[in-house]
Amino acid sequence: MSPIASRIDEFDVIPLAFSDPPLLNAAGVHEPLALRTLVRLRVGRVVAWGEGRGDALPPEVVGAVREVVLGEDVFATNRLDAAVDAVLRRVAPGMDVQARLNSFAPLEVAALDAQGRLLGLPVSEVLGGALRERVDYSAYLFFKWAGHLGEAPDAWGPAMDAAGIVRQADMLIDRYGFRSIKLKAGALPPALEVESLLALAAVHPGMPLRIDPNGAWSHETAVQVAAELGDVLEYLEDPVLGIEGMGRVHAETGVPLATNMCVTRTEHLRPAVAADAVQIVLSDHHYWGGLRRTQELAATCESLGIGVSMHSNSHLGVSLAAMTHVGSTIRRLDYACDTHYPWNREDDVIAPGALEIEGGAVALPDGPGLGVEVDEDRVAGLHRRFLAAGRTVRDDGGYMRRADPAFTDELPRW
Amino acid sequence: MSPIASRIDEFDVIPLAFSDPPLLNAAGVHEPLALRTLVRLRVGRVVAWGEGRGDALPPEVVGAVREVVLGEDVFATNRLDAAVDAVLRRVAPGMDVQARLNSFAPLEVAALDAQGRLLGLPVSEVLGGALRERVDYSAYLFFKWAGHLGEAPDAWGPAMDAAGIVRQADMLIDRYGFRSIKLKAGALPPALEVESLLALAAVHPGMPLRIDPNGAWSHETAVQVAAELGDVLEYLEDPVLGIEGMGRVHAETGVPLATNMCVTRTEHLRPAVAADAVQIVLSDHHYWGGLRRTQELAATCESLGIGVSMHSNSHLGVSLAAMTHVGSTIRRLDYACDTHYPWNREDDVIAPGALEIEGGAVALPDGPGLGVEVDEDRVAGLHRRFLAAGRTVRDDGGYMRRADPAFTDELPRW
Repeated sequence: MSPIASRIDEFDVIPLAFSDPPLLNAAGVHEPLALRTLVRLRVGRVVAWGEGRGDALPPEVVGAVREVVLGEDVFATNRLDAAVDAVLRRVAPGMDVQARLNSFAPLEVAALDAQGRLLGLPVSEVLGGALRERVDYSAYLFFKWAGHLGEAPDAWGPAMDAAGIVRQADMLIDRYGFRSIKLKAGALPPALEVESLLALAAVHPGMPLRIDPNGAWSHETAVQVAAELGDVLEYLEDPVLGIEGMGRVHAETGVPLATNMCVTRTEHLRPAVAADAVQIVLSDHHYWGGLRRTQELAATCESLGIGVSMHSNSHLGVSLAAMTHVGSTIRRLDYACDTHYPWNREDDVIAPGALEIEGGAVALPDGPGLGVEVDEDRVAGLHRRFLAAGRTVRDDGGYMRRADPAFTDELPRW
Repeated sequence: MSPIASRIDEFDVIPLAFSDPPLLNAAGVHEPLALRTLVRLRVGRVVAWGEGRGDALPPEVVGAVREVVLGEDVFATNRLDAAVDAVLRRVAPGMDVQARLNSFAPLEVAALDAQGRLLGLPVSEVLGGALRERVDYSAYLFFKWAGHLGEAPDAWGPAMDAAGIVRQADMLIDRYGFRSIKLKAGALPPALEVESLLALAAVHPGMPLRIDPNGAWSHETAVQVAAELGDVLEYLEDPVLGIEGMGRVHAETGVPLATNMCVTRTEHLRPAVAADAVQIVLSDHHYWGGLRRTQELAATCESLGIGVSMHSNSHLGVSLAAMTHVGSTIRRLDYACDTHYPWNREDDVIAPGALEIEGGAVALPDGPGLGVEVDEDRVAGLHRRFLAAGRTVRDDGGYMRRADPAFTDELPRW
């Protein structure tokens, strides 16, 4: 009936591995290779892409998903969502709802990319229209080793103290013009992390600052950190684990709390609201199940009077484009979003120049679909690295234990 | 850039009046003419329609809205939403957010109709894809006069007691196959309304039954009605006014409560959840601001563990088509929706046969856009009736006072 041929003809899932610096967090340290998955759809002559997390599905599961995806209409993302959920429940009963949404997200992004390419419209317009031309991102700072184990220092150099963090911020801000800063914490003693954030505040007065220990702090540490940082904080991210603990920290400190840990599924929102545990939800279309579900989450948060920003894992340009498109459509996007892109962009699969962070923001690509062109040769290269690496899961803790055999990722640590 | 010309070339707002039977409710009785508004868009050669409430905007306000609408892309409903909101704040500062959303909704529906017609896709597909082929509606029963004041009885005849209500249910179920029943209440003494619902339960054992007094009952009456109806009830709709009162009724009775009165804007959800006042939200795209915002509301309710169904005012086929399209896309639509359509369809503006209620459900129209064709001659006729009537607002209470000068619409009444 449609004048547009919009049935899915081909569906491929392509796991990738790409270089990642030794960035520290509460779980350990980033390994030399980060993992990621691309979904490629072909719809007639259109090739469309989505990027997802690195939890690669076994080939037999991919095959079962392919059976329900082929022939479906790329406009029918609701039915794709339901069909993928149903087939994964059947063939991979060990996957929980979160894992199923992880798997669906890159397919949904690719379907929206295909829609846009078929229509000659950017994904943002397919999603109801951009409300802003640029989406703000924050400088994402990490404590880091000088280089990977057994290797020479990398171009970023070490950041194991306040001076190193300030230097890292300078590099990122000089190059990308970021106007807010997030510091990944929970890796080193809280006093050192607080000192680092206060050093940033001294060098960049008035710049919004955030700190995120991924739940590595005790209640007492969280309260003390909040007191020491005071007005410097834009918000505190996941200072402690769990909705109840977050509610206690907020009640005691009054500091706005953000999370991508205690609210990760829709059913977490009602208890989080009841406990007044979360003032900002960090959305992430990769584990909330795609761009439309991210819009739904943002609308839900708007209804509940909760702020919205965006979480990031190590990612490539397909995801940065998707984040920027959906971010442009969210009515209340009150905070700059997180992105690891500066740490990973050298291995990117998209043609250079399509996406740049300038003035701390990414301009919405104006080409059709996601507005970025994927280089199949680069994809093939990163897929070969994935195959050669022989790894399928991320293991920050195991890598840290090679340097510090006593390391444990049990939380809270501090 | 798009291969599709999708800019709005013409925008018209057309108020209509059409025949309505003398249906009783807590506010009075339906006047002989119901009011409604159509929005007509022209996008190139495509003509698209949306239907809204009867609160007609003054011509100078329509003119101001036209200025921001013309030239905008029909795909950019987010920007249309923001632009209409901004212009109404400026030129009609007396309108509250609810009134602004009322005014935007038919424009958004028309924009989605235009998108679908441009793409050759049904609106349900534009909205992410239908999850069901048919949307269930319930038989919507009213106490009613035999005919309008000074007129002979109409074809429906009187329904001022239990026997009349049972007869009305028979007429509606015989013709449309409804499989659930809603009784509008709050108009007559509660004992008579309870007797009527129990009579329905006796004639239609096992059929889901609802009763809706529009907040006309006191707490004590609501609790007593809930006790008398017991297991017969699928849910009780707006037994009392206000979130706090609803919470008390639910706490005392345990009966699921639905509302289209105490949760009518997004900011009502958080207090309603805190008070556990509402178990089912009756969405209505006309006053929630369109089909996408209705999807957002449904997603929010899903997140909060609240059920969703749909409220209705007197309406024509453009709205029934819109309700059916959006209803088909909502993941959790656990209850049959309300519709006044059987009461108003004889004056419909759409070509007959496009929409039928069969087996208590409307099959999703499969043509492009809303899938219904609007008859411009009928529109012109109903517009002439609007102009001739000289009315711009609904006044159920004033009409009731012509029969009963002592009538007051102060609530609670019983």
